[in-house]
Amino acid sequence: MNIIDIIDKKRLGKKLSNDEIEYVVKNYCNDNIKDYQMSSLLMAIVINGMDYDETYYLTKCMINSGKIIDLSEISGIKVDKHSTGGVGDKLTLIVAPIVSLFAPVVKMSGRGLGFTGGTIDKLESIKGFNVNYKIDDIIKQVNEHNICVSYTSDDLCPADKKIYALRNASGTVESIPLIASSIMSKKIAGGADDIVIDLKVGNGAFMKDYDSAKKLANTMINIGKKFNKKVVCILSNMNDVLGYSVGNTLEVMEAIEVLKNKKIDDVKNLAIEISSRMVNLACNKDINEAKDMVVNALESGDAYNKFIEFVKLQGGDLSSLKIDAKKYEIKSLHNGYIKSIDVEGIGDLSRDLGAGRINKDDIIDNSVGVIVYKKCGDYVNIGDVIADIYYNKQLNNIDEVVNKLFEFTDEVVEKNKLILDIIF
Amino acid sequence: MNIIDIIDKKRLGKKLSNDEIEYVVKNYCNDNIKDYQMSSLLMAIVINGMDYDETYYLTKCMINSGKIIDLSEISGIKVDKHSTGGVGDKLTLIVAPIVSLFAPVVKMSGRGLGFTGGTIDKLESIKGFNVNYKIDDIIKQVNEHNICVSYTSDDLCPADKKIYALRNASGTVESIPLIASSIMSKKIAGGADDIVIDLKVGNGAFMKDYDSAKKLANTMINIGKKFNKKVVCILSNMNDVLGYSVGNTLEVMEAIEVLKNKKIDDVKNLAIEISSRMVNLACNKDINEAKDMVVNALESGDAYNKFIEFVKLQGGDLSSLKIDAKKYEIKSLHNGYIKSIDVEGIGDLSRDLGAGRINKDDIIDNSVGVIVYKKCGDYVNIGDVIADIYYNKQLNNIDEVVNKLFEFTDEVVEKNKLILDIIF
Repeated sequence: MNIIDIIDKKRLGKKLSNDEIEYVVKNYCNDNIKDYQMSSLLMAIVINGMDYDETYYLTKCMINSGKIIDLSEISGIKVDKHSTGGVGDKLTLIVAPIVSLFAPVVKMSGRGLGFTGGTIDKLESIKGFNVNYKIDDIIKQVNEHNICVSYTSDDLCPADKKIYALRNASGTVESIPLIASSIMSKKIAGGADDIVIDLKVGNGAFMKDYDSAKKLANTMINIGKKFNKKVVCILSNMNDVLGYSVGNTLEVMEAIEVLKNKKIDDVKNLAIEISSRMVNLACNKDINEAKDMVVNALESGDAYNKFIEFVKLQGGDLSSLKIDAKKYEIKSLHNGYIKSIDVEGIGDLSRDLGAGRINKDDIIDNSVGVIVYKKCGDYVNIGDVIADIYYNKQLNNIDEVVNKLFEFTDEVVEKNKLILDIIF
Repeated sequence: MNIIDIIDKKRLGKKLSNDEIEYVVKNYCNDNIKDYQMSSLLMAIVINGMDYDETYYLTKCMINSGKIIDLSEISGIKVDKHSTGGVGDKLTLIVAPIVSLFAPVVKMSGRGLGFTGGTIDKLESIKGFNVNYKIDDIIKQVNEHNICVSYTSDDLCPADKKIYALRNASGTVESIPLIASSIMSKKIAGGADDIVIDLKVGNGAFMKDYDSAKKLANTMINIGKKFNKKVVCILSNMNDVLGYSVGNTLEVMEAIEVLKNKKIDDVKNLAIEISSRMVNLACNKDINEAKDMVVNALESGDAYNKFIEFVKLQGGDLSSLKIDAKKYEIKSLHNGYIKSIDVEGIGDLSRDLGAGRINKDDIIDNSVGVIVYKKCGDYVNIGDVIADIYYNKQLNNIDEVVNKLFEFTDEVVEKNKLILDIIF
């Protein structure tokens, strides 16, 4: 077997055998296959695709490239939650404590690259918060308290890490089989029994349109089936910022507001949907009953109390949580209904303020970020505050820059639907 | 401009702009674009194609990446000849002296990688033959004697060299725009006014089928037009060995037989066709008149005498030309009409005997090679000699190995047509 023949096969749109996929993953990991060979194969996969069998086997090989976490010492069904990444996505901070009231929650998370930090970065904006757990300590804490959020071990899916880095650098990201196998390999190697995926759809997300998102969902569900794991995909709107806040400390604060049951409709409704689906899978409750349990957890204060317990468990000091940045109000330069918001642009702005990383060693400024007060369909008058900027660097042309991210029209605009579909 | 956006564009099958193509070639040459980015772009080009404009501009950028040879000090129209590479292809040795009787012949050639050496390797099998000319010396010799065959300067089309090496290593060879621009850039940078291309078609060639070969021909003709150069493509059969001999000294010997006007039909006929097309372009003679001139050159002995003059000019000693290898006769194990010959297999066998290189630093054994006595359509009896093997290494299972390269049938098989098409 040799890599040129395998590349040729995929160039011609043929199906790769299990042996060929295994050969590629193993030999790429040990550097026998060069980056320039792998990237040409990846481009052939991006353009010519992979079927379910190939995608499943690629996932399997990536899982087997590293450690597989064994959570069998935790009793009960461990349901993991994954987000494909959106602007203002603070849902894990809310969902994890809610679900842990009913089932064990083991959440392996990453740091972010892009508009804001990942869940780990957000939690680290709480002073003292420890995210570096060994697997035995994760198991111990979950067995005692039903919850642990820890940084993902580097030993999980090293093949995926290496391939993912190459895809980013070689323009071979946009492939449903490659995206699906990347997500699923990490979740399965992380020890999840079942998985609820918040699949963001819109201009602020990786998946720009409903049809691609649906294909990705079906691919992941299919992979899950082959591993005997239930997968639920919630396709949710990313043509608005989720909630209002973008930036690490700002998002933690907004998450706390939701946990306190304050009215922040989209974040709360999506948190309820995700949590209910997780409880439904973990506790064998029907979805309506699960939803009642979740809503009650929020309304009773149990969810908030669990969050407080969770932060304390992991060494965090919420009393020191504060914004250490200047604030600048952005006023609208236009009248009209908001037709669209460049959500990705808001993410990029937040990153440029210092809330996210461009390179993986960049240091994040937890206090900076953006609060966007408006959603698509809102009517805005000239002079209305549409956003706050929290900053520690010099701002340039900020009024214009932010206003340009909003498109206005005189005609009434329908609000975006929060949940586009639930597929399982 | 950045490489990821350019890769994305071609991934989606869009047309690259001139600026984008120039950016890619320049930045790949100076290592700003990495091999793994270039190979993913190349795969996108292989699968999604490039139109004539893109192919022309890529050719132009590759030409401009290095030195362009100026042959204006040689008066007359310089017609170059190129072969896309076949098994037993000794035509340059015959065509160059013939055409030089009527027009200046400046032939830049390469060393071979694969089944046999290139023209340069074949000439070097003549003791003392010098192929390392400086451009001024080429011009001087051509002005005095109308002929010079020299090793291609490394300064020609460095972008093509770098891209070609990457294509070989990354499974991105099979692309008509990439093949066409690679061939044409070298010919044009080499100073050719017009070009006759012997485009081999069949299992022993790069182009396996007529349709792909025709597409390649039309692409090269089109590129030529944009550079104001006439291009004639002769699509010729490579489902048989050309002539009988494969191996450097063996091929030089066969070329001399043809120059002496001995009966070796296919080599002679193709040499006449190529030479006539070159004379037609160089001397502004109609094709029938050109053919008469060429045939007469062979029949009169002028062509042979010119060859002797040419070898002497470049320091070669024909008297020392000899085969320094053992000979083994391969007898047929089957009766029947030859249905097909694995010509590529014969090339590979010759290479494995030592006549060609696997790696570019391998040393060639000029004496070894294969003589194939049979063509498709010939009737063979068990025990007939079908080939001679000239060898200096141990042979293993050679009777079976060679017999397996021939497919027999009881039914009459039509002989292959030598010239499939002439396109210009």
